[in-house]
Amino acid sequence: MSSRLAEIAEAAHIDATALASSCPVPILQHNQIVLGHGSGGRLTQRLIQQEILAAFRNQHLATLHDGAMLTLNGSRVAFTTDSYVVKPLFFPGGDIGSLAVNGTINDLAMCGARPAYLSAAFIIEEGLPMEEFRRIVRSMRQAAEAAGVEIVTGDTKVVDRGKGDKIFINTAGVGLIHSRADIRADRVRPGDKILVNGPIAAHGIAIMSVREGLEFEAEIETDSAPLNGLVGAVFEAGHDVNMLRDPTRGGLASALNEIAEQAKVCIRLDEQAIPIDEAVKAGCEILGFDPLYVANEGKLLAFVSPDNADAALASMRQHPLGHEAAIIGEVLAGTPSLVTIKTRVGGTRVVSMLSGEQLPRIC
Amino acid sequence: MSSRLAEIAEAAHIDATALASSCPVPILQHNQIVLGHGSGGRLTQRLIQQEILAAFRNQHLATLHDGAMLTLNGSRVAFTTDSYVVKPLFFPGGDIGSLAVNGTINDLAMCGARPAYLSAAFIIEEGLPMEEFRRIVRSMRQAAEAAGVEIVTGDTKVVDRGKGDKIFINTAGVGLIHSRADIRADRVRPGDKILVNGPIAAHGIAIMSVREGLEFEAEIETDSAPLNGLVGAVFEAGHDVNMLRDPTRGGLASALNEIAEQAKVCIRLDEQAIPIDEAVKAGCEILGFDPLYVANEGKLLAFVSPDNADAALASMRQHPLGHEAAIIGEVLAGTPSLVTIKTRVGGTRVVSMLSGEQLPRIC
Repeated sequence: MSSRLAEIAEAAHIDATALASSCPVPILQHNQIVLGHGSGGRLTQRLIQQEILAAFRNQHLATLHDGAMLTLNGSRVAFTTDSYVVKPLFFPGGDIGSLAVNGTINDLAMCGARPAYLSAAFIIEEGLPMEEFRRIVRSMRQAAEAAGVEIVTGDTKVVDRGKGDKIFINTAGVGLIHSRADIRADRVRPGDKILVNGPIAAHGIAIMSVREGLEFEAEIETDSAPLNGLVGAVFEAGHDVNMLRDPTRGGLASALNEIAEQAKVCIRLDEQAIPIDEAVKAGCEILGFDPLYVANEGKLLAFVSPDNADAALASMRQHPLGHEAAIIGEVLAGTPSLVTIKTRVGGTRVVSMLSGEQLPRIC
Repeated sequence: MSSRLAEIAEAAHIDATALASSCPVPILQHNQIVLGHGSGGRLTQRLIQQEILAAFRNQHLATLHDGAMLTLNGSRVAFTTDSYVVKPLFFPGGDIGSLAVNGTINDLAMCGARPAYLSAAFIIEEGLPMEEFRRIVRSMRQAAEAAGVEIVTGDTKVVDRGKGDKIFINTAGVGLIHSRADIRADRVRPGDKILVNGPIAAHGIAIMSVREGLEFEAEIETDSAPLNGLVGAVFEAGHDVNMLRDPTRGGLASALNEIAEQAKVCIRLDEQAIPIDEAVKAGCEILGFDPLYVANEGKLLAFVSPDNADAALASMRQHPLGHEAAIIGEVLAGTPSLVTIKTRVGGTRVVSMLSGEQLPRIC
């Protein structure tokens, strides 16, 4: 047991031996890319920090946020990009097209921005049926219309058979940051409440149940949705939000660990307060997943000061995408970078960042 | 012989039989994606028009330019995206990383914009050596620094072995449009001179000679370069430019056909005036390519009114990337959408858009 572990255990009031067993094994240096580098967890973080940030070092990238917050001719602008490699292309409640549109809209919304324009770039494997391409493009249009954004520029590349996987889509987006918004990890303070807008883990389980051929009584659908309206409603109601993040790859656990590290704070979750649908919970149990690590595509985590929290919760709950919003935890002054959870049975355990790969190609 | 062909032949003063033989065969409807859909030629154009524009229909996409020209909070902003799937990853004079940075910078420059910020999104195949990833990222940084732009946001996805091809890179970019710039196909007028900033076809031949294992006396290097400085110099010298385009996939021929169609003008090139390096010309002959269809990655076509053309040419020639700039053709009032070339031997032939696939995965 290292003295650092003992120290963390003491600060978090948890059993040091339990903490040691829950800590991820040390991550070896990799001399090639492995699937885990795309997990959204510890390996992704390491790849980004050691290889990408080290090369591109600048103040915008260094925030490690979902998008960059920039100044362009005096305007506060958010700019973001994401590639989508989800498998299968079509799944309950969505497809790669709507996912690609909603995902980038959400990254802009997490910067406190109103999404304005999107790009769409396709890398298509030779042989993709034209009808599938058409379905995907239609789905993108519908998603863009539903969210009130325009797809204004694009690109199409084709790779030879066996050198891609049907279709990969990149969407980038630009938007104007709300005048009221000031979203930064370093605004997160002890006392802040952590809100989520609804039940977690649906996207990952929807994808995995298709892949594994599982059938549940009720089909589990992705939660993929555009969060710009919800975020806009919270800002317009005048509620100050310190930090926003959509917990996609790597789930709540990885997103909260990232924020705890950046904000140098301790986060404590309350398991009982975290909304999760019964069917999704059953799916997690069957598949052996901890829902805290399962990807969401229509959820956000909002850090709000304690005096703002109830009002922000109320305004979320008035929005169609926030009916089941809940306060699921809070920020503590304890050990920096530590995320713990008070379990249903009353114990406390450490929630570490996802290490390795859990659900490849979930988005 | 259709009456339309006879009419075109008469208008262009060329032999109608020769015209018929040079016309592309009709393109069949495809029920799946083929490599030619990524060629940058007729098939790409059809895919974009029938499948993508039909779905996303809006004024910005409809311009079919290299990027979208938008208004964001009162500022004129350009926004563009491109994915890079070039094979091999490393080639004489460049690599996929520098190509991805320069390419998006150039698309912004072709909108008359000063590139400000880029995104970088990687789709990596499991197994890519970390050292190759590192080289690519370093190369991106150097290219961005050389052009004075920042890479501010990114994304990393990993796909399983056999479902990608080492690495694909998407870059998107935003920039502010020069106050003097008004780049639009519908500003192209009969009388306009067509300028190119230097010798053509180097990029495609550099890639193909690596792929085919050809060795020339002097190694042929890609012309990949950031054109923002050159374009800025022309604007700052006060020279009005009506239209800009970088002739990448599909080469000069496809770019000029697109512009001729959009502007509803006739274009006549002068073969003798088109700069091409001897080694590149030899490479084209060995490989059986018409240099007019071979991709460039550091070239631009500028349409300038006749009274501005010589001055614009002079200011291009003062820039390191424009020493060998030349006036290579002009816009005529003849048959709309027709591109012809006056050959070295004094004849005239039609230059049609690339149909099918010539050089897959050239960028």
